[in-house]
Parts: sequence; structure tokens; C-alpha cells
Amino acid sequence: VRRIPVLQIGFGGVGRALVEQVLHFNERLGGQYGFRFAYTGLADSQGAIVADERIPPAVLLQALATKQAGGSLVDVPEGGPLNDWRNLLTPSPCLLIDTTAQSGVEDALVAAVEQGHRLVLANKKPLAASYDTFRVLTTGARTRYEATVGAGLPVISTLRSLLDTGDSIQRIEGCFSGTLGFLTHQLEQGVLFSDAVRDARQRGWTEPDPRDDLSGVDVARKALILARTSGFQFELSDVTVESLYPPTLVDLSVAQFMDQLPVLDDHYRTHYVSAADQAQTLRYVAHVTATNLNVGLATVAIDSPVGSLRGPDNLVVYHTERYAHCPLSVRGPGAGTEVTASGVLSDMIAFAREWLSR
Amino acid sequence: VRRIPVLQIGFGGVGRALVEQVLHFNERLGGQYGFRFAYTGLADSQGAIVADERIPPAVLLQALATKQAGGSLVDVPEGGPLNDWRNLLTPSPCLLIDTTAQSGVEDALVAAVEQGHRLVLANKKPLAASYDTFRVLTTGARTRYEATVGAGLPVISTLRSLLDTGDSIQRIEGCFSGTLGFLTHQLEQGVLFSDAVRDARQRGWTEPDPRDDLSGVDVARKALILARTSGFQFELSDVTVESLYPPTLVDLSVAQFMDQLPVLDDHYRTHYVSAADQAQTLRYVAHVTATNLNVGLATVAIDSPVGSLRGPDNLVVYHTERYAHCPLSVRGPGAGTEVTASGVLSDMIAFAREWLSR
Repeated sequence: VRRIPVLQIGFGGVGRALVEQVLHFNERLGGQYGFRFAYTGLADSQGAIVADERIPPAVLLQALATKQAGGSLVDVPEGGPLNDWRNLLTPSPCLLIDTTAQSGVEDALVAAVEQGHRLVLANKKPLAASYDTFRVLTTGARTRYEATVGAGLPVISTLRSLLDTGDSIQRIEGCFSGTLGFLTHQLEQGVLFSDAVRDARQRGWTEPDPRDDLSGVDVARKALILARTSGFQFELSDVTVESLYPPTLVDLSVAQFMDQLPVLDDHYRTHYVSAADQAQTLRYVAHVTATNLNVGLATVAIDSPVGSLRGPDNLVVYHTERYAHCPLSVRGPGAGTEVTASGVLSDMIAFAREWLSR
Repeated sequence: VRRIPVLQIGFGGVGRALVEQVLHFNERLGGQYGFRFAYTGLADSQGAIVADERIPPAVLLQALATKQAGGSLVDVPEGGPLNDWRNLLTPSPCLLIDTTAQSGVEDALVAAVEQGHRLVLANKKPLAASYDTFRVLTTGARTRYEATVGAGLPVISTLRSLLDTGDSIQRIEGCFSGTLGFLTHQLEQGVLFSDAVRDARQRGWTEPDPRDDLSGVDVARKALILARTSGFQFELSDVTVESLYPPTLVDLSVAQFMDQLPVLDDHYRTHYVSAADQAQTLRYVAHVTATNLNVGLATVAIDSPVGSLRGPDNLVVYHTERYAHCPLSVRGPGAGTEVTASGVLSDMIAFAREWLSR
């Protein structure tokens, strides 16, 4: 049974779910598949655990418990402070996993793949940096990133397989945000916009500052990743993005913003009611073509695929040369720590299988 | 650029589309991906073309033209008669592709994978033979079979990835037949059953004997493949299958059967009308659980996911431990030579990438 060395940066909700799934995979399928993942490094924003061969499962379990209790990896007996995760890269190729949401690490990630490491991203930001960075990271299939769009749903792998087999993308559209799916579905249930945002925030379905979701930029990043994977050269600044709050609320603190939210209630109530009068509803929709990228609030027929979405469901619809008359579509919950981690693990398994016979 | 040796048996609609897609892949992506597929053998039911290194593209193009014109591979100047495709297997491992619909080749395929060859199936029958055959073929991931369910839709890869990452299947359901999807949708449009079958047959969407589709056995095989992949041990005889024609029509010739079809029109008209009275419609639906496998005509709400299918669309809905509240689903056309071939090619690429570093 071969050992596949793994360095994971990020130990939040997704990172912890991933460590649990990896331990489970090693125990249950490793023997049958002929490989097990061996953590040589695990880092959060403050600390890290490092091992020459592998961090023992018992230490990983202790790290999970420490973090769950509000600590950091620096607090685990085997852990230590972290200056720079780049120092944790092994000389021989490893799987480098980024489950953070950090920006500005693009250059370090590019350097790592150019040294021969393989990269798995749950972090969208490196792929939404400059087009050139995207191209360098993804050339030669040395980066996989299933979890960046639709979490565990087979969104990127489906697109990859269409392209590999010679199909070409005419249009990709759908709803790529579980948070905004929940909000628009709540409007449909008669819930006030401000109450829906508050509810989503309390469930942990928004970022700590809900404007990070309501601005649409997160959806814009996902649309950009799908476009670039399709071979369309766009920058993030090329995406037309509709924000769900006005510029007047940009400079407020989070608490002030939450207090001010009810000023938007009438606007969204009126918008929804006039849509409902024509058997339509509101959804936050993304459109990707070779010439145009836009994301925003759209009025859609209530019995359309997008209109029929419930709660945090995502939908990705591929209109291609082969699937021209009837599109191919993938649907399901597109957020959550467990399913996001499963998207990452599935990429790790694909890399490991390619490495097996080295 | 590495050569991946390929032996393909079957040169009908899917087989020809596959050869075209492989030639296109080699030319367009081979350099970038670091490998090209090299046909060492290509066989239809009467003849074969064989090469030590690779069959040149020009010969493959000629074979396509000959077959299109109604000939066989025995008629191509480079071709010859075929006694047994097993004689075409190379001593070193190759990708063995079965695009036929033949039964009874299970033992030969098992022998091939045990010799180290890798198998890609568009042919459902070997995987719907005994459970033991399925287990031996698929152990160690030496057989891939995306095209057997839903043609080019990511049905098997999605299931595989759910299982690999530690999810477990509670229930899979949906519509797995483009032909029966078309028929039931036609009933909904007010078309007579007999006219709908005749129309589908003329479009080439049924088998030459439409009873092969109407019996439900083809759907039963797909349900069985999904069940077995999920880890549920069933035999084909365990599937409860509802046929769309009565036993009295079993022994007729195809021409007689087509003549007799109108005797069923009233039955299906009445059935549909009583469903429509309650905002329901008819669909040929499959259900897979750990304890039960059944396929048959069901009355479903017209605004349900299954009820909203149009024409030859397939739908596969995965209810799993992780996707328990909102299921994951894949939808799109599940038949056609081009999309079926693309499912096969996608499996071939996955195998090739795993082989690259050998």
C-alpha cells in the first residue's frame, strides 16, 4: 500500500471535515485501492503540525478535538507556531491542499506546482486571480478544483469531461450560491429580506459579513472559474455583477449593516410581488458564454429549472454543441462543510490514482 | 507523447462515433496531455483490422467510410475476416473497448482483465451477468463503464465519487431510458401509444425489435448496474420489471407486433387521462435501494422532477447519507451515438492518465 504525502493548509470547517474523511478513507478503502494518504503537514493560520513520514492518526484526532474546543494547531502538544507554510513543502512531490479562503497566495501556489507538487483547491481565489495565474496553475492538469463550484457536486469534472471528449461549450447558466438560493426562496415564502438574511446568518450559511455573499462577488468568481475552464479568457473585472445592497451600505460596520437591512425590505417585496403576478419568481442567476459573463438577480418562470430550485440547492446547466437541444444539468446542495470536503477528497483520490504507478 | 494501445470491438453507430472522437482527441489534445490512443485492433462482427504499432488514421477513415456505405471491416483493403477477437489482444496491457450489445462474452472479458488489460464498456450485458462476474470485472477499478447508464451523462463517475469519499447510498431513482422517456412524453402530448412507438422506431431511437425497449429489461440492467456499483448484491432476476406490452404479444414477429400495437392504445390513453385528471403524468421509473430493485410505469406529479422530463431526457437522483434532505441529481439526454461515445472516451482518458507514469 503506497503512501501519498499530503500537506493541508486550512483547518476550518471544511479542513476539519476533510481530515475526518481522509482518516475514514485510509481505514476503509486504502487497502483495497492500494494507497493511503499520509499527512506530512497540517497548518492553520497560527500553527502547524509536521512529520517526516506521517502525522499519526491519534495526533490528527487530537488536533480535531483541540480546534473544535476553540484552540489552534499551535496548542496541540505536537504542534508549533507557523511562519510560512511554504517551509512545510517536502522536497519530493506531495499533494498540496488549500482549504482556506485566503487571497494573495497565488505566487506561492504557482511555485509549488512548478516544483512538481500537485494542488487541490477548495479556495476559489487563486483561480479567480489573473488569467495568467489560472493558466499556469491548471496547465498539464496539475491543479484540481472540484470543490470551488457547487462544493461536492460534479461540476468541474463534468465540464472537464465534456471538453476532453471534444464537445464545446455554448453557454453555462444556473444558480451557484446556496446562500442566495436560500434568500430568494425565502422571499418566495413571504419572508422579509432582512429577516431572511438574519436567518441565513444565524444558520452559519453566510460569511460573518453577509455582504460578502450579497455583493455577488463570490458567484462572480465561480462564473469566472467555469468560463476559464471552458477556455474563455476573462478577468474578474470582466464580470457584470449585480449587488443585492446599495452603495450607501458599503461603509457600515457589520452591526450597522444588519440594523439598516430593513430599508431594503419594501424594494424586494415589491420586486417579488410583481414577478409572482406573472407566475415568475426571483433567483440569483449566472450566465457564462464566450463573450459575456454576468451574475445578478433575475426574474424567472416559477416552473423553469432555475425557478423550481428550493433552499440552498445549486443548479448548473451546460448547453454544448452535443447537448444543444436538451442541456445536461447537475443539481443539488452546493454548500456545506461535509460536501465541500468530499469534493476535495475526490480530487485527491484522482491524483493518487494517477500517481500510483510511478 | 506516450502511445496508449487500444483494441475496440464493435463498429456500429457508437463504435464509429468513438473512432471519430479518438482521432479528434489525438490531433487536438494528445500533445498537450502527453498521450495519444493507438488502435492496435478494430473489429466488427465479420472482420477486423490489426496493426503491430497502430492502425494509421487514413485506414481508420477508410474503415469509417466503408462501414457508412454498408460494408464491413472485412471489406476494407487492410482488413481481414475475424474468427475471435481474443486473438487480437496484445501480450502487453491495452485498453479493451466493448461497444457491442453482445451477451455471452463475460468469460473472455474476465480473462482479459485478469491478464492485465483494462476494460471500457458501453455494453451493459457483461455487468448485468452474474454478480460474481460483475465483482471480478470491477475489482481494483480495472473496468470503467460510464456509458452503460445515461450514455455521456456523469452517472457512474458521480456514484463512484460519492462512495469513494465515504458517502453511502440510501436510494437512487429516476428515468434511465431515452426511448421510454420519449414514449411517455408523447402520450402526454395526446399521441396514440402505437403511433409513438412507430415514430420512435423510425427515428432509430428503439432497438430494431421495439419490444427490447418496451419490455423494460434494458432499464432493469441499468438499475442493476447502479445497485451493484452501490455495493448492493442483486441478480438480474431480483429486479421487478413491468413490461409495456402483454404476454400475448411476445411470440409475434416484429411486423406482426407492430400491426397489433393499436390494441394497446385505449389502455394507455385511459391510463394517461386518469393521471392527468389529478395533475399527474406517466413515466417509466426505476428505484434502487439496498433491499429492493424495481422498474415500471409510474404515475407521478406533473411538476415533480421526473414529471417535468421532456423527450429523451434521463434523470438520475441520488439520495445519500450526505445528500439526504436535498438529493443530488444529474439530468440530460441519455441516448445517442455521439454522447454514448463521449462517455466511453472519457473513461479511456481516465485510464490513460493513470497509465501515463508507468
